Amino acid sequence: MARRLGRRAFLASGAAVLGGAAALGGRELLDADPEPAAPDSPGRATVAFHGEHQAGVVTPGQAFASFVALDLVDGVDREALVRLMRVWTDDIERLTRGAPGLTDTEPELAAVPAGLTVTVGYGPGVLTAAGREDLRPGWLTPLPAFGVDRLQEAWSGGDLLLQICADDEITVAHAVRVLVKEARTFATVRWVQRGFRNSPGTVTPGTTMRNLMGQVDGTSNPIPGTEDDRLIWIGPEGPAWLHGGTGMVVRRIAMNLDTWDELDRPAREQVIGRRLDNGAPLTGTHEHEEPDLEAMTELKLPVIESFAHIRRARSDDPDHRFLRRSYNYDESPPAGELSNSGLVFVSFQADIDAQFTPIQRRLDQLDLLNQWTTPIGSAVFAVPGGCRPGEYLGQRLLEP
Amino acid sequence: MARRLGRRAFLASGAAVLGGAAALGGRELLDADPEPAAPDSPGRATVAFHGEHQAGVVTPGQAFASFVALDLVDGVDREALVRLMRVWTDDIERLTRGAPGLTDTEPELAAVPAGLTVTVGYGPGVLTAAGREDLRPGWLTPLPAFGVDRLQEAWSGGDLLLQICADDEITVAHAVRVLVKEARTFATVRWVQRGFRNSPGTVTPGTTMRNLMGQVDGTSNPIPGTEDDRLIWIGPEGPAWLHGGTGMVVRRIAMNLDTWDELDRPAREQVIGRRLDNGAPLTGTHEHEEPDLEAMTELKLPVIESFAHIRRARSDDPDHRFLRRSYNYDESPPAGELSNSGLVFVSFQADIDAQFTPIQRRLDQLDLLNQWTTPIGSAVFAVPGGCRPGEYLGQRLLEP
Repeated sequence: MARRLGRRAFLASGAAVLGGAAALGGRELLDADPEPAAPDSPGRATVAFHGEHQAGVVTPGQAFASFVALDLVDGVDREALVRLMRVWTDDIERLTRGAPGLTDTEPELAAVPAGLTVTVGYGPGVLTAAGREDLRPGWLTPLPAFGVDRLQEAWSGGDLLLQICADDEITVAHAVRVLVKEARTFATVRWVQRGFRNSPGTVTPGTTMRNLMGQVDGTSNPIPGTEDDRLIWIGPEGPAWLHGGTGMVVRRIAMNLDTWDELDRPAREQVIGRRLDNGAPLTGTHEHEEPDLEAMTELKLPVIESFAHIRRARSDDPDHRFLRRSYNYDESPPAGELSNSGLVFVSFQADIDAQFTPIQRRLDQLDLLNQWTTPIGSAVFAVPGGCRPGEYLGQRLLEP
Repeated sequence: MARRLGRRAFLASGAAVLGGAAALGGRELLDADPEPAAPDSPGRATVAFHGEHQAGVVTPGQAFASFVALDLVDGVDREALVRLMRVWTDDIERLTRGAPGLTDTEPELAAVPAGLTVTVGYGPGVLTAAGREDLRPGWLTPLPAFGVDRLQEAWSGGDLLLQICADDEITVAHAVRVLVKEARTFATVRWVQRGFRNSPGTVTPGTTMRNLMGQVDGTSNPIPGTEDDRLIWIGPEGPAWLHGGTGMVVRRIAMNLDTWDELDRPAREQVIGRRLDNGAPLTGTHEHEEPDLEAMTELKLPVIESFAHIRRARSDDPDHRFLRRSYNYDESPPAGELSNSGLVFVSFQADIDAQFTPIQRRLDQLDLLNQWTTPIGSAVFAVPGGCRPGEYLGQRLLEP
């Protein structure tokens, strides 16, 4: 079978074992083995937990994500938050290296780290509960209302956020379960948004993801490790407790695929300003080329229309940029509908007010894409910096 | 970064390209490329569509599945069903080889087949609409009510079923969209259940999957390609239109992970009758060993308890067996709950009445696992045999 052969070649070091199974008349007689396959299998990959920044921000997007927003229960104060953060820090450190959580009841499900990262964010409620409202950055507040918004409470807000990403969905589900369970006396689940990209190994690493409208989504991101770092990470000019941290926007963007289907291919390309096949701007041939916003057709019309998404999403101000790290969602459609699909839009930026909001205002005013996309959820979180061994996440806020 | 290195080694043929990107200061300058990575990447894998049987039954379980149940709209008759089946057959053949559907509006999303299979099933309503009720096998009817059932209409029944499986969730979402859209004038979506297993390459191929209770789930299945085929495929003794087909049960089994957590490890192993670490029966050391149901402890107690799941799920009658092909689900929890997890239980068998129902009755009467699992959905479908080039799925029913 082609698929089986593909896998066999794919995991060369597993071939001997698989050959043995094949010799037994097709029966897969391998014992259930919680160990990932080959030493270089994506199941064994780990991302370092300790460091200046939390993982999961500039980490290349894993295949799956769960975004879990929680609300603190009444009576949770600074001391309680310290306890929760100590427990979470310990468990995140364990799970991300493929070890069970401290009180893990399904340790076998922890054995495949698959590049797991857990990123913790704080909504405004954490600063209130901790008695640290004076340390709240100005942007840590709900975004201004935009005309396109049709926000639902069920997908908005939250005191705490867990962004849990890995290249295996069982790994994600297990980490969600462990961390939500550890928090049960401190917080209740407000919403969970699950998202996906291509599976590990199915497309060339580094390929920009496609959303379910078929568009290349996430080109021209700031480049980590360059001077663009100032756009991503909060530096000495921000609150000390957020040094090495970032601001995070999570918006649920519903896509109306049924009306999008009514557009032909040239119209779709005009809406975005990019080619559908390879994501190149309509004035170029390669995805990462700069679009030429001045270019005109022979009829003296702009090649990239005034209403095109890439024109509207681009500002003359080089500070109006942010790191996008979005995921697709595809859920059961409500009665009478064909689909329930969209994007868990995620962006990281040092200052949401200065970088994100101006662009969102431009898109709100005029962006033809608004006709097929509707924001139905919105939340803002402050992501503290990373921690060293012996420290816990958020320590510089809770025990400065 | 360890994860990046893991991926790099993992996709050796992509390393040169990635090295080039790394040289550009970490920026991923690769153009978006709808082609899957290496020739032996799991993204390029295909499963043959044409054949004696439909794919997706004995095909080793891919990482992701969507189960879409549809209801025929009023007025759909035999001729309309012929039109729908011709369109679906054509599109399934295209999509499973990595080609866009005939009227595909997002052709780039079709470029990664990732082992895609689409399996079509008929509920009783198809035979009614086609005026072929005389050809309905006795088992093509809702299962008898079991005492443990708490069935919800929202997860039960359906006139048509699409089982869509692949190793990439974008591939699955795209195929669902194409096929549901093609059917829009014939049928409405009744329910969609999405499920997952480990990602391609994260565990050794052939490893039995684990469910979210942490149990090895699916040991001691019938073995395709052996005399067990008579348990899976409908032979000459069945209706001619189902020759080479099978009967399919889809049940949604909710897991109460919170009360399951209250059990310690030995108690959990007693509930199942298997070891949690490697799935071996409590009387043995390897997963695929036969359990010794007579074995006694020194205290003259059975090693495998009378209430253990593997004892109850096992019959003295060798015909009381079926092929399980289940998937995990993990959805947003309802307000006040910690999780919403379980199993999309799927089984294939030549005769549901003769093979599946007796075992389900045994489990209903006494199975300690019932305390932590609740069937909340149930549906039964007849899966017609496969088709040759030029034929369409279900032709032997619709145009005999």
